[in-house]
Amino acid sequence: MGNADDYMYPSSMNSNGGESGSHRVAIPPPQPFLISLKNTVKETLFPDDPLRQFKDQPPRRKLILGLQYFFPILEWGPRYSFDFFKSDLISGITIASLAIPQGISYAKLANLPPILGLYSSFVPPLIYALMGSSRDLAVGTVAVASLLTASMLGNEVNAAENPTLYLHLAFTATFFAGVFQAALGIVRLGFIVDFLSHATIVGFMAGAATVVCLQQLKGMLGLDHFTHETDVVSVMRSVFSQTHQWRWESAVLGCCFLFYLLLARFFSKKKPKLFWISAMAPLTSVILGSLLVYLTHAEKHGVQVIGHLKKGLNPPSIMDLEFGSPHLTLAIKTGIVTGVIALAEGIAVGRSFAMFKNYHIDGNKEMIAIGTMNIIGSFTYCYLTTGPFSRSAVNFNAGCKTAVSNIVMAIAVMLTLLFLTPLFHYTPIVVLAAIIIAAMLGLIDYEAAIHLWQIDKFDFFVCISAYVGVVFGSVEIGLVIAVTLSVLRVLLFIARPRTLVLGNIPDTKLYRSVDHYPNARNVPGVLILEIDAPIYFANSSYLRERIARWIDEEEDRLKSCGESNLQYVILNMSAVGNIDTSGIEMLQEVKKKLDRTGLKLVLANPGAEVMKKINKAKFVEEIGPEWIFLTVGDAVEACSFMLHTYKPKPETDGSGKWSNSV
Amino acid sequence: MGNADDYMYPSSMNSNGGESGSHRVAIPPPQPFLISLKNTVKETLFPDDPLRQFKDQPPRRKLILGLQYFFPILEWGPRYSFDFFKSDLISGITIASLAIPQGISYAKLANLPPILGLYSSFVPPLIYALMGSSRDLAVGTVAVASLLTASMLGNEVNAAENPTLYLHLAFTATFFAGVFQAALGIVRLGFIVDFLSHATIVGFMAGAATVVCLQQLKGMLGLDHFTHETDVVSVMRSVFSQTHQWRWESAVLGCCFLFYLLLARFFSKKKPKLFWISAMAPLTSVILGSLLVYLTHAEKHGVQVIGHLKKGLNPPSIMDLEFGSPHLTLAIKTGIVTGVIALAEGIAVGRSFAMFKNYHIDGNKEMIAIGTMNIIGSFTYCYLTTGPFSRSAVNFNAGCKTAVSNIVMAIAVMLTLLFLTPLFHYTPIVVLAAIIIAAMLGLIDYEAAIHLWQIDKFDFFVCISAYVGVVFGSVEIGLVIAVTLSVLRVLLFIARPRTLVLGNIPDTKLYRSVDHYPNARNVPGVLILEIDAPIYFANSSYLRERIARWIDEEEDRLKSCGESNLQYVILNMSAVGNIDTSGIEMLQEVKKKLDRTGLKLVLANPGAEVMKKINKAKFVEEIGPEWIFLTVGDAVEACSFMLHTYKPKPETDGSGKWSNSV
Repeated sequence: MGNADDYMYPSSMNSNGGESGSHRVAIPPPQPFLISLKNTVKETLFPDDPLRQFKDQPPRRKLILGLQYFFPILEWGPRYSFDFFKSDLISGITIASLAIPQGISYAKLANLPPILGLYSSFVPPLIYALMGSSRDLAVGTVAVASLLTASMLGNEVNAAENPTLYLHLAFTATFFAGVFQAALGIVRLGFIVDFLSHATIVGFMAGAATVVCLQQLKGMLGLDHFTHETDVVSVMRSVFSQTHQWRWESAVLGCCFLFYLLLARFFSKKKPKLFWISAMAPLTSVILGSLLVYLTHAEKHGVQVIGHLKKGLNPPSIMDLEFGSPHLTLAIKTGIVTGVIALAEGIAVGRSFAMFKNYHIDGNKEMIAIGTMNIIGSFTYCYLTTGPFSRSAVNFNAGCKTAVSNIVMAIAVMLTLLFLTPLFHYTPIVVLAAIIIAAMLGLIDYEAAIHLWQIDKFDFFVCISAYVGVVFGSVEIGLVIAVTLSVLRVLLFIARPRTLVLGNIPDTKLYRSVDHYPNARNVPGVLILEIDAPIYFANSSYLRERIARWIDEEEDRLKSCGESNLQYVILNMSAVGNIDTSGIEMLQEVKKKLDRTGLKLVLANPGAEVMKKINKAKFVEEIGPEWIFLTVGDAVEACSFMLHTYKPKPETDGSGKWSNSV
Repeated sequence: MGNADDYMYPSSMNSNGGESGSHRVAIPPPQPFLISLKNTVKETLFPDDPLRQFKDQPPRRKLILGLQYFFPILEWGPRYSFDFFKSDLISGITIASLAIPQGISYAKLANLPPILGLYSSFVPPLIYALMGSSRDLAVGTVAVASLLTASMLGNEVNAAENPTLYLHLAFTATFFAGVFQAALGIVRLGFIVDFLSHATIVGFMAGAATVVCLQQLKGMLGLDHFTHETDVVSVMRSVFSQTHQWRWESAVLGCCFLFYLLLARFFSKKKPKLFWISAMAPLTSVILGSLLVYLTHAEKHGVQVIGHLKKGLNPPSIMDLEFGSPHLTLAIKTGIVTGVIALAEGIAVGRSFAMFKNYHIDGNKEMIAIGTMNIIGSFTYCYLTTGPFSRSAVNFNAGCKTAVSNIVMAIAVMLTLLFLTPLFHYTPIVVLAAIIIAAMLGLIDYEAAIHLWQIDKFDFFVCISAYVGVVFGSVEIGLVIAVTLSVLRVLLFIARPRTLVLGNIPDTKLYRSVDHYPNARNVPGVLILEIDAPIYFANSSYLRERIARWIDEEEDRLKSCGESNLQYVILNMSAVGNIDTSGIEMLQEVKKKLDRTGLKLVLANPGAEVMKKINKAKFVEEIGPEWIFLTVGDAVEACSFMLHTYKPKPETDGSGKWSNSV
């Protein structure tokens, strides 16, 4: 068989080989282990380089910068102006009008006393105003986390039978959610949130919204008993097993208000200037509904009402945290799951609005702010809060300038707690249900799902899996499925990297994929392969097989065309970001096999990391440094030179087929 | 601020822009969804294209090929010659002499009756000879899987108190291991085994070897009671809490034989021709030890012996499978874990020797063979078998040619079972312990660990974690830690991709990393970045931040040098293998931000997949197709042309800093 190893490599070739002469692939200078470790840790945990601004500053300035880091209000506070305040006042009052009914509704969703919704809109926004770096986030409770709390805690403790324990566990879960959120920020592991991909969130949100809407059937139909499960099958069975209990008064009232709310939103969408119609609609619904019930005494005719709400500000709840309870594990688990979900929503929302206004949000700093606000919230009779999308969008539309709008909202809620709670006595629950349904319908973003389908089928698949998982299984199942699928996709990208055959683009020295550029031409006697991922243990066996198959296929093709034999295999390493020891072994094996069948392995453009490692493993010596080129063009030129200078010996037998040779 | 959008893009530029003229980045032709799905599934599950050889064959030939696929013996059998048989006979007898004492030792390790070691060296090798595709694998039980069986089953069932149940569970676990192994092969998920990286296996094997050696202290010291834990702390406590029980006779005998075995190996290593000294050493030890005990009646002086071994071939055990047992879950779990470990060893060993002899091993076919052999083994009184490294290495050294050596070994074991079992009555257990220790010491491959440290620090870290996990925790803990770390590394590669600044290599049109090629020069007014990984949800936030920081740093640098302002940011997408919707959103955000600060985003060499998706998402339109170039060189040329033709407007204020602009 023709063996490229037999040929002497002419020392003059470098100068013949065109541009390659003076530009060999460099072996990067060795770096001390500690320095490279430091760099890796820095890039992994501190990609935003938070200490950059502290550099070369006097100690006093460093202290101020440090305080400003944790309390951004110290940074923007001094620059705060009356004009800003006017805008913040209007937006603050607007979100307060939304916060009160929503707070009560979501607390019901979490099976908690309705007053907690108001408490949770008082203390946490104040904390966030001090520590948060977003100017548009409006703090409050969210539907999905409320539902998750109810479903997870409800697995072990029945809220109706044991309300005190359930309440205390909710505080404990909130405490752990806050600790977990703040800890993620402190140890700078904020990137965990990134593993909830856009597609996951779209599907998950839509699924949760569907489930929440289904749960509202209880309020809409005025049912007393209802399933504790959240999946669509259980809910439907529960609803249709008690058709005789349906209250038409309740259902009619609910549908009217739902229609009103959707109409208000429709108009606001048509004319963004009328955003306040939509923003005020929940409060007007509550006022109208309460008045209606009060005047018609509908509470005696099947329309359930909220009933008594305690007057006064948040009582302390720090002593209610159940650290010694047998349900502690449950509380921690609930806290971590709801904390991550809430964090993902809060950060995504903050980031979206920051993008609109072109300012910067520091994910880790936000985590510390949201975490602290939940820790303090758990001490003051609040449950899990974050920055809900609906409320923040209203805040943004109302023209908020800074986090002062949160302070305004908190004061409005405080005044409500101090003086206005009796007014909510007659608020019909069905109106709250209508408010929740209206809000939820906005979260089912079918357009985003269609967009996903058009651009990336796998993302669509992840999205639909999350949706189906949530709707037919449970909120956790949906989440786990979607995250697992997303991670599997990443692993699959590594485990099954694409390998491309490159060809020469006519009239250039460029080599590109023949699939992508159909006019790219093969080079006689040379097979050029590109590997599109790092070579790791997870793909080294696959690549070994795949390279073998490419070579076999190429040899079959050449044989059927009657063209000259394959002599060189060039691996373009441009896209190989890294390699590990399994990967190097794979290359060594491929090299050995190629040698044995008389083919020559050539590398093109290995990166710094790859070059460093294959040099340490002595693979550079094995392959010969003169067979590693800076570009595919150089490599092809050298191979062609060799092919024309030294005519290949004829093959001695027909068994040149690569993977079957014995 | 200077805004590149203000400039008209001259239609003549393409012809001025050098080679770029006729070579735009093509948008790949749309592919029907089902075809691309089919291709993806094929690449993922059938990378070796197993049906290739069936193409265009008559049905009769297809049937033969199909039978040959499942029974490779039909393929090589007809070509079998007497010369082959001579070699196989010698190697078969050699491995039988090793198989008998090792089988008995490992069965003791698994807390199973010693005779099982012999049974397991009879039936499974015969099955493998029919179905396996390796010519060098010698089938038998392995230490690690034996130890795992003992430790996992031992958690629920005590082998000493309830030997029958324990035995039946071991058969059941073997059955499930076989089913799982065969299933992996049938559904072509063989690549799961690839997730056990080289580094993991080195660390895990060394850890398991250490643990197994520690377990042998029981036999060496002649102890009756011993801990069921495998970690070093428990074992040491168990050994030193009963110093008064130590039997010096046993220890002395053990040390002598250990010394003999190690010496034999030392000589074999020095002179590979003397491999048979090492191969025969275990059998000679057993014979010598048994003779010694028989003559000196040492069994009455503290030297434990094997005792009675039943004569006769494997009884059936198919009725002993405990499918209705409350421990069924345990048996399934044990089966899956031990099955994967055994599979990984078997395939890795088969592949290594195939590489030496340059033939091809099909991972999926091997799985089916190993799985079937274990299923049938579980019906015939055998426990888990695979291709152990030590035995296969001896087989290889002894010059085996085909799987017939396994048949020879099976016949030798059969003869032993029929006629020679009484001879093992006086075999001292301490000799078996010495055999195990000697074998295990060879598995602690410290040289490989040093090699890992030199080439890849992270691989070394994975290896040491696996070792420490196994030695101080348990076999399962070590394995889970190592696999998790390996997977985390892959995820981290995606979550924190490297971004490189490129510069021009003097006298060429090439652009390479300035870190790797220190002589590469920056291009005035242009920042060239390369992203070294696919852009996925897991890294899109990071890349957003990182690109912002690169731009800030470049602007700071330019300002401090007093050079001209940054006008263009070129992203080299050569190494971006894929993109998802989160990634496209990131690019859109980056583009918006750059536009706002008067910078222009330019793409270079996006691949087919990326181009297809950004085109569908209309990002190609947004960025302008004329700003997507085939090479970085073309992109730089176009930017330089614009910079020189249209002088940039002066900046209007000092707040041009990118990420802080409001």
